[in-house]
Amino acid sequence: MNAHVRPPRLTDGDRLWSNLMTMAEIGALPHGGCCRLALTDEDRQARDLFVRWAREAGCEVSVDPFGNIFATRSGRSRDAAHVLVGSHLDTQPHGGRFDGVLGVLAGLETVRALNELGVETEHAVTVVNWTNEEGVRFSPGLTGSGGFVGAIRSYDTSAISGVGGVPFYPELHRIGYGGSTRLTARIAGYYELHIEQGPVLERAGVSVGVVEGVQGVRWLSVDFTGEDRHAGTTPARDRRDAFMAAARLAVDMRTAALALDDAFRITFGRVSVEPGSINTVPGRVNMTVDLRHSEVSHLDRIDEAIRREVVALHGTEGVEGTVERLMDVAPVRFDPAMQANIETSAAELGIATSRLPSGAMHDASNLATVAPSAMIFVPSRDGISHNENEWTDPIHVADGCEVLARAVLRHAMGDVGPH
Amino acid sequence: MNAHVRPPRLTDGDRLWSNLMTMAEIGALPHGGCCRLALTDEDRQARDLFVRWAREAGCEVSVDPFGNIFATRSGRSRDAAHVLVGSHLDTQPHGGRFDGVLGVLAGLETVRALNELGVETEHAVTVVNWTNEEGVRFSPGLTGSGGFVGAIRSYDTSAISGVGGVPFYPELHRIGYGGSTRLTARIAGYYELHIEQGPVLERAGVSVGVVEGVQGVRWLSVDFTGEDRHAGTTPARDRRDAFMAAARLAVDMRTAALALDDAFRITFGRVSVEPGSINTVPGRVNMTVDLRHSEVSHLDRIDEAIRREVVALHGTEGVEGTVERLMDVAPVRFDPAMQANIETSAAELGIATSRLPSGAMHDASNLATVAPSAMIFVPSRDGISHNENEWTDPIHVADGCEVLARAVLRHAMGDVGPH
Repeated sequence: MNAHVRPPRLTDGDRLWSNLMTMAEIGALPHGGCCRLALTDEDRQARDLFVRWAREAGCEVSVDPFGNIFATRSGRSRDAAHVLVGSHLDTQPHGGRFDGVLGVLAGLETVRALNELGVETEHAVTVVNWTNEEGVRFSPGLTGSGGFVGAIRSYDTSAISGVGGVPFYPELHRIGYGGSTRLTARIAGYYELHIEQGPVLERAGVSVGVVEGVQGVRWLSVDFTGEDRHAGTTPARDRRDAFMAAARLAVDMRTAALALDDAFRITFGRVSVEPGSINTVPGRVNMTVDLRHSEVSHLDRIDEAIRREVVALHGTEGVEGTVERLMDVAPVRFDPAMQANIETSAAELGIATSRLPSGAMHDASNLATVAPSAMIFVPSRDGISHNENEWTDPIHVADGCEVLARAVLRHAMGDVGPH
Repeated sequence: MNAHVRPPRLTDGDRLWSNLMTMAEIGALPHGGCCRLALTDEDRQARDLFVRWAREAGCEVSVDPFGNIFATRSGRSRDAAHVLVGSHLDTQPHGGRFDGVLGVLAGLETVRALNELGVETEHAVTVVNWTNEEGVRFSPGLTGSGGFVGAIRSYDTSAISGVGGVPFYPELHRIGYGGSTRLTARIAGYYELHIEQGPVLERAGVSVGVVEGVQGVRWLSVDFTGEDRHAGTTPARDRRDAFMAAARLAVDMRTAALALDDAFRITFGRVSVEPGSINTVPGRVNMTVDLRHSEVSHLDRIDEAIRREVVALHGTEGVEGTVERLMDVAPVRFDPAMQANIETSAAELGIATSRLPSGAMHDASNLATVAPSAMIFVPSRDGISHNENEWTDPIHVADGCEVLARAVLRHAMGDVGPH
């Protein structure tokens, strides 16, 4: 193909943008954001709208026991594996208009493009809305995709806790999305288009990111116990200052993590200092550590360094420390053939891409445990997300969707990988 | 004097101990401590008991507009300056049996000893109970002594705020201690016996500490503003992590303070980290700094170092910082002649002493601004105070009181300083 001749676009960027803005009216916030917490009335309205649009596009709609919605454009053979495309319609309490919803509506736009192309694909193409990705009202997050891949058993009420005590299944049935139809087809591949939620693509001046995988995440809780003492009467040598121990741990471990690899991400997000009195040496600190890296060995090394330093701080600060692992999610590597397929689509369109890891977890992290999976990122202005100011330019939305649709088409025609 | 012949004791340590334990029944807590917050019914009961005991000891009792109680054993001349002895009867919410109350009841024991000695002193001896030293229910603390020395104007309702909204003067009148008699006599000297509330004397194996002065105290509030960002998607170079700035400030400033003088006391007591989410880079931190040293120049140097580092952290961490001074109390130096007088008393008794600064503020800090003042410390077991486990051994209580009484007697006879 001559690189100077651009092929016609299959998808309609304006139609997708209009859909995004219509969806954003549900749970709209004053400064342009959205609040559509999972299984609220707003979530039900968003689901209803998606189902209506999917049916208008000729899809057959089914709902599984986790409330995941599958909108299927059938393929040539009932037995062939499905190509799945999706993400989530729920948002953070002060969420934006793009996080999650872009991937669902771009899936729908892909189906419409296939309809308009009049093509019958080998594989069915199924657009999915996963339940409670954000994990705000129910914990853990990524609930729907976790249930789909078998990480959470259905109707195991102990597996999903309602934050604030609201139970999951009653809420799911209340909004009319407690289904019973499980998708039994094999999955040829899962594609998820998502906003980056970080600054890398914007800085690189690239419209489309091909996601190599998802960083592993390890959450630790560190408790330090020293002794509450009078700030005026207690000499330095008699102090067992839990906050000084915490501060040293934070400074030293950031240095260690970035020395190992400057792509390492280490965050001390929750730090509680007690008793919290201006003239009392703090006797207790609880702090959390969020570690992210693409290599398990790197996560292990910093995890071990933290445990060693906590022991060392007992000697130097007189403070007892304990470390508890709260969560440990292994890194995910996306399917190489699907990444190449996405790059081929972008190259056809003359759209520059770059490869990058995902710092955040996504439903694709779950899907990758059972099927070939891939993600496409589009830029987030200033890297901002989980915020009403979240923004992606219309051109990036349109480019991301077009690259997605072409990749899905090729995959659904049986031209990707061994399927 | 032959060092092996001990003079008879003037004071009765058993009687003082018994008084302390009787007083401790008022507001008694389950684990041996006391809760007698200023101007509560418990404070009134404690005051009533003190007044009864003082009258039984032949004292004339008066109350001033701040509720300070003066119990006077008159001297030879009505015009001669008074020797004041005192402390406070109010406690912390989980206070002990010794903090404050020891100084008041040892003053009373001194008066009884003078009575039993049958001596008429040159100067009157006045035992004082200062109102609201602890500052728990009303702010600022050291209220009564502050009012006495003119730092707080009487009936200036804006000068004393009720924590929780309870106003000072109505409470004072409610418990019957809103007086109108101001002590107009000149003050020959003010003596305060107090528990150390720190570990220095216990470690030195000494019963009596001669306090050289009170460290200066400076309180700062430091605010850091960075940006809340996703812990997974935000690379290190894009972070403006307010907690990392706070941690570096704490580590570096402790190092700087102890390098200047290992007697420096620096405490980061209140640290609030927002938004406090495990997977969000913290965008805001407020932390307090409590700086204590005997030299103003040392306090200035660390204060300036903190301000310089906050500016530097803008460059290295991308975090905006502001520093506000919440309080600044200059160091106090106690009267050299009175310190020598206390040491003479101890030497007569064969009691070892050592000189030390006071890390905490006391009513004597206020008195020193208007009259020669001195403090005597006795050991606190494990340095613990503001705690139900606060403890001082009976022998230390008795030694401290005897040293006090002998010093007061010599001073009241006109044998100390230029008075």
